Amino acid sequence: MKRSLIKETTKLDGKKIKVCGWVNSFRDHGKIVFIDLRDRTGILQVIFDDKVYKKAKELQPEWVLLIEGKIKQRPEKMQNKEIETGKIEMEGEKIEILSKTKKEPLIDFSKKELNLKLATLLDNRVLVLRHEQSRIIFKIFETTLEAYRKIMKKLDFTEIKTPKIIGTASEGGANFFTFDYFGKKAFLAQSPQFYKQIMVGVFERVFEIGPVFRKEPHFTTRHMNEYISLDAEMGFIEGMEDIMDEFERVIFYLIEEVSKKHKKDLNFFGVEKPKIPKKIPRIKLQEMKKIIKEEYGYEVPGENDIDPEGEKLAGKYAREKWSSDLLFLTHYPKSKRPFYTMPSKDNLEETEGFDLIFKGLELATGSQRIHDYDMLKENIKKRKLNPDDFEYYLEVFKYGMPPHGGWALGCERLVCKLLNLSTVKKASLFPRDVRRLIP
Amino acid sequence: MKRSLIKETTKLDGKKIKVCGWVNSFRDHGKIVFIDLRDRTGILQVIFDDKVYKKAKELQPEWVLLIEGKIKQRPEKMQNKEIETGKIEMEGEKIEILSKTKKEPLIDFSKKELNLKLATLLDNRVLVLRHEQSRIIFKIFETTLEAYRKIMKKLDFTEIKTPKIIGTASEGGANFFTFDYFGKKAFLAQSPQFYKQIMVGVFERVFEIGPVFRKEPHFTTRHMNEYISLDAEMGFIEGMEDIMDEFERVIFYLIEEVSKKHKKDLNFFGVEKPKIPKKIPRIKLQEMKKIIKEEYGYEVPGENDIDPEGEKLAGKYAREKWSSDLLFLTHYPKSKRPFYTMPSKDNLEETEGFDLIFKGLELATGSQRIHDYDMLKENIKKRKLNPDDFEYYLEVFKYGMPPHGGWALGCERLVCKLLNLSTVKKASLFPRDVRRLIP
Repeated sequence: MKRSLIKETTKLDGKKIKVCGWVNSFRDHGKIVFIDLRDRTGILQVIFDDKVYKKAKELQPEWVLLIEGKIKQRPEKMQNKEIETGKIEMEGEKIEILSKTKKEPLIDFSKKELNLKLATLLDNRVLVLRHEQSRIIFKIFETTLEAYRKIMKKLDFTEIKTPKIIGTASEGGANFFTFDYFGKKAFLAQSPQFYKQIMVGVFERVFEIGPVFRKEPHFTTRHMNEYISLDAEMGFIEGMEDIMDEFERVIFYLIEEVSKKHKKDLNFFGVEKPKIPKKIPRIKLQEMKKIIKEEYGYEVPGENDIDPEGEKLAGKYAREKWSSDLLFLTHYPKSKRPFYTMPSKDNLEETEGFDLIFKGLELATGSQRIHDYDMLKENIKKRKLNPDDFEYYLEVFKYGMPPHGGWALGCERLVCKLLNLSTVKKASLFPRDVRRLIP
Repeated sequence: MKRSLIKETTKLDGKKIKVCGWVNSFRDHGKIVFIDLRDRTGILQVIFDDKVYKKAKELQPEWVLLIEGKIKQRPEKMQNKEIETGKIEMEGEKIEILSKTKKEPLIDFSKKELNLKLATLLDNRVLVLRHEQSRIIFKIFETTLEAYRKIMKKLDFTEIKTPKIIGTASEGGANFFTFDYFGKKAFLAQSPQFYKQIMVGVFERVFEIGPVFRKEPHFTTRHMNEYISLDAEMGFIEGMEDIMDEFERVIFYLIEEVSKKHKKDLNFFGVEKPKIPKKIPRIKLQEMKKIIKEEYGYEVPGENDIDPEGEKLAGKYAREKWSSDLLFLTHYPKSKRPFYTMPSKDNLEETEGFDLIFKGLELATGSQRIHDYDMLKENIKKRKLNPDDFEYYLEVFKYGMPPHGGWALGCERLVCKLLNLSTVKKASLFPRDVRRLIP
C-alpha cells in the first residue's frame, strides 16, 4: 500500500489507507487511545481500540509510526475546526513503529504556542524546529528566497555564485574570520561585494543568495555572525535613484508574495500586512535626524550615523506621517561608507548611499559605486589602505566598467520583521552568535 | 530617451534609439568606423561616419558607450547569419563614453573561441568571463540551479539554509578548514550533512544549494576546495532504492532542462545531449570492478574503492552496453563511507551507499543513513570517534527519526560534464584550488 499524505485524507473518507508520521500528542482514555499524527502536510486524529489498544497504549510523543486504518467522518460534536482534517479521523488497524524516543520531549506539541526562553529555544533547536510555530517561520523564509529569485529573474538579473573563501578582506578592515589556506592567509567573505561588481562587467545585472560571515562581537536582537544575504548589482544606472527604484519593485514583491501565500500563517503570528506606500519615501539622513529631534526630542548621537533608537523613531515617523513601514534614508556620510561608495555630487562629505528601514530596523544597505579606476585607487589611498591588496578587484576597472550600484538585504531581518519576532535569531534555523556555535 | 536592449533592435528598424554596452570589436576603414557593441543581450553592429567619425576613431575595445542612432537594414550581401541582429545595423549619431580602458585586453572578443592556457584563463578571470564562451557556461550554471529548485519543489522538498560555520567536524576527520571563532575552534562545513538530516525531522524532505569547503590538497581536473553542492535528504524511505528513484527523476530533469533551454549553446560547444536511459542502470561496485577487469583488462587498485580510471571505464561500459551516460554504482564498502551510512542488510561490510557516475566521472554520492540512536552511537565508537563531539547531532535521534537518506551533487561537475569542459574549474566563476585564492 502506498503512503497517503495527511492533507490528502480529507478526500479519502471510507478508504483504507496508510499514513506515516510522528505522534504529535497522545491521550489514553482506557480501552481507547487517541493520537494526533503529524506529517509534513498536517495533523490527523487516529483512534485505537479493541485489538490495537494494547499496542497503542505504549506509544509516546514523537515516536515515528506507520499506521494502516480506515478514514471516517467524526461525529458532528467531535469535529475540530482548528485543523484541516477536523471533520475526519482514522480508525487505526495496524501500527508499525519506525522509531522510538530516548528522551521525553520538553515541548508539548499539542500546544499552539511555544512559550520558551530564547536560550531554551535555541539550545533545543533539533526539537523546537518541529513545532508548527517554528515551521511556519522557515516556510516563510523559503517563500522569501523563492520570491527574491523570481522577481530578480523577471527584472533580467542573472543568478551567480561567488566564492566565500577570499584572499583579500573586501572592506580592508576588521570583522573578518581568518584562517590558513594552504599556507596563505584567507578570509571568510563578509559580502560578495567585489565579485558582484566584477560580474556587472559580464552580465550587467546580477544577484546572489548566499551566506555572509561577520566577526562582530555583537550581543543584540538584530545581529548574527552568519546570515543569508540577498545581494544585487546593476550596471548602466544614471544614479542612486535608479537603484532605489529597482529595489523598491523587489521589496514590494517580496512583501506581496509572503502576504499572499501565508495569510493563515501571518494570522497565526497575529501580524498584519506591512503598510506599503505607492512609493517608498526617500529622505536624507541628516534631514531625518533633524525631524527626529524636532518631533520626538531625541538627539541621535554622533554626527555621521544613526543609532538603533534613531532608526526606530524614523520608522515611527514614516508610519505616522507617510503611512509607510518602509523608508529610504539617503546620502549617508562618507566616513560611514566603504571606499568604493560613490561620493555625492552636491556634497563631497556625503555619498550616493542609502539604507532601507523596515518597521524601524535597517533591513538593507545600498549605494552607487565608483566605476572610475583612478578615482577608486585614490579613494583606497585616502582610507590609508594599500591598493596592492585590491589588485584583482582594481583590475576590472582597467577594462571599462559602466556606472553601477546595488544592494544587500538581510533575509533573516526581513522575515523577523514580517512576523514581528523578538530577535532575528528566531528566523535562522541554526543561528550563529558570539556564544553559539552549536547546534 | 530610454535605453533599448540589443536583442530588441531587430524590431526597431527605422527607429532612432539609444543603446549601451561595450566595444566588442573595432575596425577603422578610414572615414568610416565599424564597431560591434555588446550588451547582456547580444551584439549590434554600429557604423560611424561623417560628423561622428572623428570621435569614433578614438574608440577602443572594451570601452563602455552609450550610443544614439538609427536602426536600418543591412545590404543583403553584408548580412551576418551568425548573430541574431545580423540583418540590421545602427547608424551611430551620438557617442557618450561612459568608461575607458587603462590596459589593452589580452582577448580578442571578436573571436568565437578562447584559445588560452588554463592558468591564463583563470588569472584573467575578470576579463575572460566577459567572453561569450564563458558567459554561456554560467548561463547554463544558472539554469542548473533553477532546474534543481524547480524539480525539488515539485517533489515536495522544502528549501533550507544551514550554517557553514560549524562547531564539529561533521565526518570527524581531516580536510576541514579551521579557524578561531571568538575563542572557540570552528570548522567550515564540508557538507550540510548533519543539518539536512536534522531537518528531516522537521520537513521530512529538504534540499539545499550552498557552498561546501574541502581542505584537500588535490591537483586534479575534478576537484576544487570550494564548490556548490546540490543537497537533498528525504524521510520515510524503505531503502536506498527509493533515494535512487527520486534522484533519477531529478537528474533527468536537470539534463532535460539544460538541453531544452540551451540547444544553441550546446551547439556552440559542439556537444550532444547525453544518452539518457529509461532507467539508470544500477550495479554493485564489486560487480562493476569484475566487469572492468574482464572487459578492459584493467585491475582497479585497492579492494574497497574505485579510482578515476575505473570510473571512466565504468562510464564507457555503461555507454556501450546500456546506452547510458549515467550509472549508479551501489553498495560501497563500509570502510569508504562515513559512520552515519546504513550498513547493507546482506553484507555488513558493504553499505546502502551509492555513487552516480556521469560520463565516467563521479557526479554525486548518496546513501541511506542510520536512523537508530544506539546503532549510530555504536558506529561512531567503532570508528574511534568520540560520541561527545557529535552530541547535538545525536540528540535528534533521541526524538524519533524515520528511515531516511539523501544525496549530494556537485554542480560544477555536472556543468563541466554537460559541456565536456577540460576541468571543473572552468565551471566555477572564481575557482579555489590549492594555489588559487585570487581573484
